[in-house]
Amino acid sequence: MVRQARAVRTRQSLVRAAAEVFAAEGYARASLPAISARAGVSTGALHFHFASKDDLAGAVERAAADSVEELAEGCRSGADTLLQSLVHMASSLLLAVVADPVIRAGFRLSGDPSRKNGVQILRWWQVWVHDLVVQAQREGELAQDVSVDAATTVIVAATAGFEVLGAADREWLSVERMTQLWTFVLPRLAAEPIPDPALLLSEIRTAAVDEQAE
Amino acid sequence: MVRQARAVRTRQSLVRAAAEVFAAEGYARASLPAISARAGVSTGALHFHFASKDDLAGAVERAAADSVEELAEGCRSGADTLLQSLVHMASSLLLAVVADPVIRAGFRLSGDPSRKNGVQILRWWQVWVHDLVVQAQREGELAQDVSVDAATTVIVAATAGFEVLGAADREWLSVERMTQLWTFVLPRLAAEPIPDPALLLSEIRTAAVDEQAE
Repeated sequence: MVRQARAVRTRQSLVRAAAEVFAAEGYARASLPAISARAGVSTGALHFHFASKDDLAGAVERAAADSVEELAEGCRSGADTLLQSLVHMASSLLLAVVADPVIRAGFRLSGDPSRKNGVQILRWWQVWVHDLVVQAQREGELAQDVSVDAATTVIVAATAGFEVLGAADREWLSVERMTQLWTFVLPRLAAEPIPDPALLLSEIRTAAVDEQAE
Repeated sequence: MVRQARAVRTRQSLVRAAAEVFAAEGYARASLPAISARAGVSTGALHFHFASKDDLAGAVERAAADSVEELAEGCRSGADTLLQSLVHMASSLLLAVVADPVIRAGFRLSGDPSRKNGVQILRWWQVWVHDLVVQAQREGELAQDVSVDAATTVIVAATAGFEVLGAADREWLSVERMTQLWTFVLPRLAAEPIPDPALLLSEIRTAAVDEQAE
């Protein structure tokens, strides 16, 4: 029982350490010895849990996908309208890229040319945004002259862009930058005026800070 | 004289071959022997022209920057309004990512975690868009309730996102997808209705096809 709990902990620290190394170095340059050293375990222990770097990257991608799905559920249940949950989720996701190395690695591996055929977090995000915008249209939240496809394209492209630009310049992952995005997008997207995006996002920032302080 | 012309040609084929390998494999995995083989020259010839992989990547980035500046000049001089030149340039840039391996590599190296401190094509793009939007505001082309910073943020993020999404799914670099972007963005951005983005973009597509046929 104790041994099993320790094995779970070791596996978790390996996934986290791998995420940090993949996010910083990219898939190709990440080395298994660097990952086991960062996790504070032997390379033997790493190989006990993961057969290969590909296997480890797959585990990081699955962990990132789980975290992101959980985040999405929280954003859906906590918002008054569908478009508010969209703003909430897009912003939470980008703040999570900063705060959570596993989610950051999930994104980085998604766009890494040396990592092919992984779980595509960007593909998941595209489907999530599309489904939400379809539902928003059905509920009458979408402006009449906006198509679901155009709205999905702009939101998915902009958030993917924030992530890639944020890797070189952290300022792109600030609440200020996200407020600029939604101040531009919402008046075009929504059938009715939405509460001030700056206000919406300041609540998200407060929640994120509270969570980190816990 | 003949020898000098041949040296210039060899250097150009090395830059092009390097661009193809960097774009496909990422910086870390790209190997110098693979590059010299693709260029059809010996590794000795490669080392005569370039001291290191870093040096070669720098040459690719500078060549990409030159091509992109040239593209921008053409787009500025060929358009009726500043916002039209913005649509033209953003779309031409994304079509060039498909058509020109040097520009594609410039973008890929910009976002590659294993390539640090290179010439940042995304940074250049951000400055270009910002300058153009400032000028558009001065000329009264920008809608009154749109800020320069918000407009720049959305356009830069969306185009960076198209590029990264396009690396996994070429559909993102299609004229159809770009038309969706501008159909969404232009009515919010422009003070006065702009000609149908689909029409604007079909002209760009025709021009791109003509150029490739030359």
